[in-house]
Amino acid sequence: MKPLREAIRPTTIIRPEKLRTLLSLDLVVISETFQHTGSFKFRAAYNVVLNRPESEFVGVSSGNFGQALAYACKLLDRKCTVIMPHNSSKVKVDAVRSFGAEADLINVNEVSRVERLEQLREERPDAYMASAFDDRLVIEGNSSLGDELIDLGLDAIVVPIGGGGLISGTIEAFERANRPIEIIGAEPLMANDAARSLKAGHIIPNELEPQTVADGTRTLSVGNLTFPVIQRGVSSILEVSEEKIVDGLKLYFEHANLKCEPTGALSLGAVLQYPEQFRDKRVGVIVSGGNVDPTLYSQLLAG
Amino acid sequence: MKPLREAIRPTTIIRPEKLRTLLSLDLVVISETFQHTGSFKFRAAYNVVLNRPESEFVGVSSGNFGQALAYACKLLDRKCTVIMPHNSSKVKVDAVRSFGAEADLINVNEVSRVERLEQLREERPDAYMASAFDDRLVIEGNSSLGDELIDLGLDAIVVPIGGGGLISGTIEAFERANRPIEIIGAEPLMANDAARSLKAGHIIPNELEPQTVADGTRTLSVGNLTFPVIQRGVSSILEVSEEKIVDGLKLYFEHANLKCEPTGALSLGAVLQYPEQFRDKRVGVIVSGGNVDPTLYSQLLAG
Repeated sequence: MKPLREAIRPTTIIRPEKLRTLLSLDLVVISETFQHTGSFKFRAAYNVVLNRPESEFVGVSSGNFGQALAYACKLLDRKCTVIMPHNSSKVKVDAVRSFGAEADLINVNEVSRVERLEQLREERPDAYMASAFDDRLVIEGNSSLGDELIDLGLDAIVVPIGGGGLISGTIEAFERANRPIEIIGAEPLMANDAARSLKAGHIIPNELEPQTVADGTRTLSVGNLTFPVIQRGVSSILEVSEEKIVDGLKLYFEHANLKCEPTGALSLGAVLQYPEQFRDKRVGVIVSGGNVDPTLYSQLLAG
Repeated sequence: MKPLREAIRPTTIIRPEKLRTLLSLDLVVISETFQHTGSFKFRAAYNVVLNRPESEFVGVSSGNFGQALAYACKLLDRKCTVIMPHNSSKVKVDAVRSFGAEADLINVNEVSRVERLEQLREERPDAYMASAFDDRLVIEGNSSLGDELIDLGLDAIVVPIGGGGLISGTIEAFERANRPIEIIGAEPLMANDAARSLKAGHIIPNELEPQTVADGTRTLSVGNLTFPVIQRGVSSILEVSEEKIVDGLKLYFEHANLKCEPTGALSLGAVLQYPEQFRDKRVGVIVSGGNVDPTLYSQLLAG
């Protein structure tokens, strides 16, 4: 059993000159698209499975955490079930199954993922119910990405927010290193529960799972464990339009040779929508993952 | 003026588990898509401009060498003109211009690139006519990629062939290190001048520039300097169908999160078309570049 830092792949750092010239910005792209299973989620999933004694894991995931949990369970020889919305990307469902895990597909308009998790918790009392974000082991696993960014000399880092696990890990890594930095959340405007919660001072969930193109952020709310970390550590949360998310995805394709999923383009979308916040700074944008159906991607590129 | 090894970016090594599982192969992807200007050609172009005294450079290029030469000239403060087919990818023409170079667009059915080069040679006697492949400085520059591959423990490396500059550099790097390895060329079947020349024992050019989807290989023939290196150093040259090139491009997208241009997918296409040649070997496939028009890419993905 490899320790976390040996099991993960180091992140990919890209300084794409065409994109940097186009934006007139000292931009550093931090891409987790080549991480195991194609997103940062492997860091979290592996850390959970490695540190829990259970022989079975059940995960709730819009896709990437599911793949990551399935692969971590395969590597560490555990049983795995992933609860997924029935409209998840086909590539994500296929990937979960290819790692030997069970894909438990639900219609989120009839039963929420949390309700389904409770059902399975009763059915399988010996399994560990692995949250994609609201778990200390998840935050700790994600903080390994932050550790890799400490010495990049960044003034600001922009991080996509779904459940808040990645940004919490990033915050904790910089706290641990005692290196103050501006950490900015990027959230879809149509799934802006984190921004609303931050303003209100308490968690305000979305009523339904928002159908943003950034499908990795289709969560009802940030977590009980991630929210306090976000409250103490973020400089701001920027709300990004669907259009700017897609613009980000297209710019990565055309000017950085980077294929990413819409959720991964959230951070660049924030830079495009709020350029005045980033002027004259060295800005790191985290690309959280790269898994996207070819049909959807072609449409977004051509659209 | 930075020396070559400081000016280039190290190549990106990816071991994509989904693709490896799908092919049941110990596959190592060596991607130059994040190199400066998005292809390996920057290695060659920078080495040429760095080591020549002229203040003006004229290049002949289906696109990537043009971008690379333009950017190298910008970095090293020289004047640059790039002769390009009028049907080159728009992104490639735009990129050449964005680096301050002149794009000299020609209809290759009326005047060959070589003829146009001769015209410009007469018009501008003080300029250096930079070949995209048939130049010792090009081969030497490209060999810097081979240097990075010496310690990967590969049994075989598959390298796209257009003019033969990349494979010649790869061969010379392994010769220099005295590390025998199987080096296999991958060439489009419809642009198979290198394969035909190798069989014949002398250079047999294409009659017209072949309109393969792998537009980086639309050259009339391998070069006088590259051909002898190919003759002494390649194990074989595999002729790849247009279909397998596109299959390679799609597999990179779906199972490796890698955006590449069709020419970059030639080496994986060869592995798909001739699987028996690679069984039980650790195989490195070089992805030569990533620059491709979004419209073409969408069509290839969806097709």
